[in-house]
Amino acid sequence: MKVGFIGLGNMGSGMAANLLKAGHEVAVYNRSAEKTRPLVEQGARYAAQVADACRADAVFTMLADDHALECVVFGDHGVLASLGKGKTHISSSTISISLSERLTEAHGKAGQKFVAAPVLGRPEAAAAAKLAVLAAGAPDAVEPCLPLLEAIGQKTFRMGDKPPVANLVKLSANFLIASLVEALSEAMALVAKAGLDQKEFLKFLTSFDAPLFKVYGTLIAEKKFEPAGFAATLGLKDVRLALAAGESLRVPLPIASLVRDKLLTLLAQGGEKLDWSAVSLIAEEQAGLKARVA
Amino acid sequence: MKVGFIGLGNMGSGMAANLLKAGHEVAVYNRSAEKTRPLVEQGARYAAQVADACRADAVFTMLADDHALECVVFGDHGVLASLGKGKTHISSSTISISLSERLTEAHGKAGQKFVAAPVLGRPEAAAAAKLAVLAAGAPDAVEPCLPLLEAIGQKTFRMGDKPPVANLVKLSANFLIASLVEALSEAMALVAKAGLDQKEFLKFLTSFDAPLFKVYGTLIAEKKFEPAGFAATLGLKDVRLALAAGESLRVPLPIASLVRDKLLTLLAQGGEKLDWSAVSLIAEEQAGLKARVA
Amino acid sequence: MKVGFIGLGNMGSGMAANLLKAGHEVAVYNRSAEKTRPLVEQGARYAAQVADACRADAVFTMLADDHALECVVFGDHGVLASLGKGKTHISSSTISISLSERLTEAHGKAGQKFVAAPVLGRPEAAAAAKLAVLAAGAPDAVEPCLPLLEAIGQKTFRMGDKPPVANLVKLSANFLIASLVEALSEAMALVAKAGLDQKEFLKFLTSFDAPLFKVYGTLIAEKKFEPAGFAATLGLKDVRLALAAGESLRVPLPIASLVRDKLLTLLAQGGEKLDWSAVSLIAEEQAGLKARVA
Amino acid sequence: MKVGFIGLGNMGSGMAANLLKAGHEVAVYNRSAEKTRPLVEQGARYAAQVADACRADAVFTMLADDHALECVVFGDHGVLASLGKGKTHISSSTISISLSERLTEAHGKAGQKFVAAPVLGRPEAAAAAKLAVLAAGAPDAVEPCLPLLEAIGQKTFRMGDKPPVANLVKLSANFLIASLVEALSEAMALVAKAGLDQKEFLKFLTSFDAPLFKVYGTLIAEKKFEPAGFAATLGLKDVRLALAAGESLRVPLPIASLVRDKLLTLLAQGGEKLDWSAVSLIAEEQAGLKARVA
Repeated sequence: MKVGFIGLGNMGSGMAANLLKAGHEVAVYNRSAEKTRPLVEQGARYAAQVADACRADAVFTMLADDHALECVVFGDHGVLASLGKGKTHISSSTISISLSERLTEAHGKAGQKFVAAPVLGRPEAAAAAKLAVLAAGAPDAVEPCLPLLEAIGQKTFRMGDKPPVANLVKLSANFLIASLVEALSEAMALVAKAGLDQKEFLKFLTSFDAPLFKVYGTLIAEKKFEPAGFAATLGLKDVRLALAAGESLRVPLPIASLVRDKLLTLLAQGGEKLDWSAVSLIAEEQAGLKARVA
Repeated sequence: MKVGFIGLGNMGSGMAANLLKAGHEVAVYNRSAEKTRPLVEQGARYAAQVADACRADAVFTMLADDHALECVVFGDHGVLASLGKGKTHISSSTISISLSERLTEAHGKAGQKFVAAPVLGRPEAAAAAKLAVLAAGAPDAVEPCLPLLEAIGQKTFRMGDKPPVANLVKLSANFLIASLVEALSEAMALVAKAGLDQKEFLKFLTSFDAPLFKVYGTLIAEKKFEPAGFAATLGLKDVRLALAAGESLRVPLPIASLVRDKLLTLLAQGGEKLDWSAVSLIAEEQAGLKARVA
Repeated sequence: MKVGFIGLGNMGSGMAANLLKAGHEVAVYNRSAEKTRPLVEQGARYAAQVADACRADAVFTMLADDHALECVVFGDHGVLASLGKGKTHISSSTISISLSERLTEAHGKAGQKFVAAPVLGRPEAAAAAKLAVLAAGAPDAVEPCLPLLEAIGQKTFRMGDKPPVANLVKLSANFLIASLVEALSEAMALVAKAGLDQKEFLKFLTSFDAPLFKVYGTLIAEKKFEPAGFAATLGLKDVRLALAAGESLRVPLPIASLVRDKLLTLLAQGGEKLDWSAVSLIAEEQAGLKARVA
Repeated sequence: MKVGFIGLGNMGSGMAANLLKAGHEVAVYNRSAEKTRPLVEQGARYAAQVADACRADAVFTMLADDHALECVVFGDHGVLASLGKGKTHISSSTISISLSERLTEAHGKAGQKFVAAPVLGRPEAAAAAKLAVLAAGAPDAVEPCLPLLEAIGQKTFRMGDKPPVANLVKLSANFLIASLVEALSEAMALVAKAGLDQKEFLKFLTSFDAPLFKVYGTLIAEKKFEPAGFAATLGLKDVRLALAAGESLRVPLPIASLVRDKLLTLLAQGGEKLDWSAVSLIAEEQAGLKARVA
């Protein structure tokens, strides 16, 4: 296919290279032109303007934030003005759901197609075509692009026909990773202050790395909280003991404090005998979803 | 070996059964005696009193909390009074580090050995001998017990010679799991309120379940924050966008709020270009460890 | 003076009425015109359009949010287009500091004056001319307006010559009130669950209502943390005991959790003997200001 | 009356001196005896042992924490062993509600009376007899002690006949003050980073110091959330704008984040038009009290 690629940062460079390797004709545009050079050496066509990159069946955008994408799309001679009718804008940037809604509407009005295809993975994964790709949009927009998405990632996850949902899932995934990093940071500070080598702690931790999202996500999604594998009261006890250890070692653990309060809320509402994963009922209740603890 | 086992709850029953299967002589005690029956049918000796279970080379305790363990150990005819000189108390309960310190000292004074061997895993893992075991204590206490620990778990992690460290690591691990459950609960509430099936979200999530602790734990332990795979400014942007999505969908995300504030603190201190895992520097700094952002 | 007033909600109606009472000629505009009626009955001139209200020496705007104010100011025939050179826009709405910056710049370019004059107080205070007014802007803009500001409030506080600072102070004050309301809500839930009548608790509380901001604000502003009136270790102890009471009564106290973590951070950094108000050093340090605990 | 006083720290010294000034016979005991000297010079009797101080109609204890009080009361020759039948222990220390329960029971069994009389105020207030005193206990225990309590404070608040309730109210009050200090610290860091002199900010703040607990406490206690003086949606907007200002100035505001999430929870549950003080409904709901938002 004839593809444009706008935005050649850490992530975009690898993605564009993989489109080339997969045999597509790729025109590359970047605000500072020198980043196009390595790709041109690999066979890409140099696009001097956004509009040049838009003379294609589909144009990817992979930019830093809402503002950068808004300029490229809605600016003079931008994607919206330049892309042909029936052609597709594939937006891989991590953007707000409100901008994704606005893009969906604007491209629709312009007779263009819009696919949200945010990606997960660090630059090495982008270079190795090992990204996870989240694709959402009208089927007649998404399906012709699947070969492109397969060229940049190891798996494409279809997230329905509303582009903003793919963006929301991307944000949720990054939020989850950031949470895990913060929790890990606190735990690592705690064991370090007790004199343990963080690498020893890590060696242990990584031994049960694999199934946590799956085990607990399934309990949460299926609301299987009884019989409790590990009761909320025991969970509260352990988090309280971690906080007590933190207090005696002088290590604040704000995530632990927050989790303690959630488990306590669960108990206050009658969830003593439920599995500790039933804290998800509190999250649902606070979101105004129809959850009931007991 | 001749082993006593005190505490036959969801976890203890499976652990005691696996000691039997491994060919050890096991005497079982539980406050409410009926729980000993299935194990006696499998060949265990019934212990009517704590002291009966202590006529052994080593006695395990697997009880609900500090208070229960204190009663069993320090009470009249308790473990401390009943266990022979040179014999070992293996404490697998999840207890406070202060009780672990007190036990270390008391058994030492009594000429007995003390091993902290808390375990990770849910009851099914206990039944299947698939627990992770964290062992800490003097080498001459721990080493003779390794065959016992191997009988109840799939892997034993040595955590040095101070028993409380094993307890701290156990608490830290449970705190991490609880954090992940809470973060997952919030993310699941968010996508559900946007109309996505939580199971679809989960299917996607579990595809990158494996390496997160390892990838980020290594960055944190080795303090490799430059060059940034994913810069703190971008991390803050994504968490902010998740919060904005939560606000428009009316879904509070308290973990995301907390993580946002940590990333912002990192930026306030000059960490803009560091990898987002450098939030660990803030945790270390707040703990009074000698971390420096920039 | 000849004054325009745009925005006759709960707050604006009272403010405009007080301008009338003080003898000013007031033209009133509101998107839904019926709200102008009571004021017209009191002698105001009805302005059918924003531009009508701008035929004045100064025009107040008192609107719900950034978006409403942007429409009124930057829209066709808006304040920016209608106000005469040398005339003044007095913005009393609670708006973002970024919009305040933008207004400062835009009015400057248009040869108009801009005064940020956000107000504090509930509708009853607006009606009674008992608002606190925060005024910031160039002296030649603010000073001619002082009689107007005195007509609507009981006291005008000058906040320097940068309009956004007045808006920031307003936001900070509302954030403080919201914090106090949340903390009060948690404490009231705690004592209620212990069986105490909330009104009895309140009767006690209000007896020391007065000097808290002053006492602690002075300690913070002057950084007088030694000798400690109440040491951080004691503060941590009390917050921990409040959390323990909350745990036994099943009352989550998230603000208390957060405060505990801040006090613990203070101790981790050597502040054990400082007054508990030295937690402000942690806030300053996290903001990248040059604070040092010890 | 004949009074003993145990614990002559910053607070206790002033309290004992005021008992002397009021004409009571006071015997003073302190672990390190030199602190008794100034009081002996003012006419107090020196008590070399706890038991000496207990030869009195009533004995005050004013100690640092649970542990110190437990030693003094339950230790050999402690208050429990030394105080005569029908005599009264007045406990002014800030202690846990669980210790207060234990003391109530133990003194009752010993035929002694127990009054919890924790105090509020800093050392200067103790010296000036301007403490607020919270008194709880059986009427026949409290009433004879009222002259003593009046000697040390400016007002005595009766908190019913259960001693732990007075301790809980004391803890709640300190938690409230700590919350206010933390919120104030964050706000002061925010305005400082914007270049405003903290003392100017303070001058403004103290102008509305007085009525906040009363105004909002009354709304909360009486659940008068409609019509809204300031609607929850507007409250959320302002807290969001404070957070946005914090983000652009690089100032984390964790209390604001928490409050934002509470207001958002209120909106998620249908409270959009309620007064922002209705966040108290969320606190009540989370505590398992029978609150309903809408």
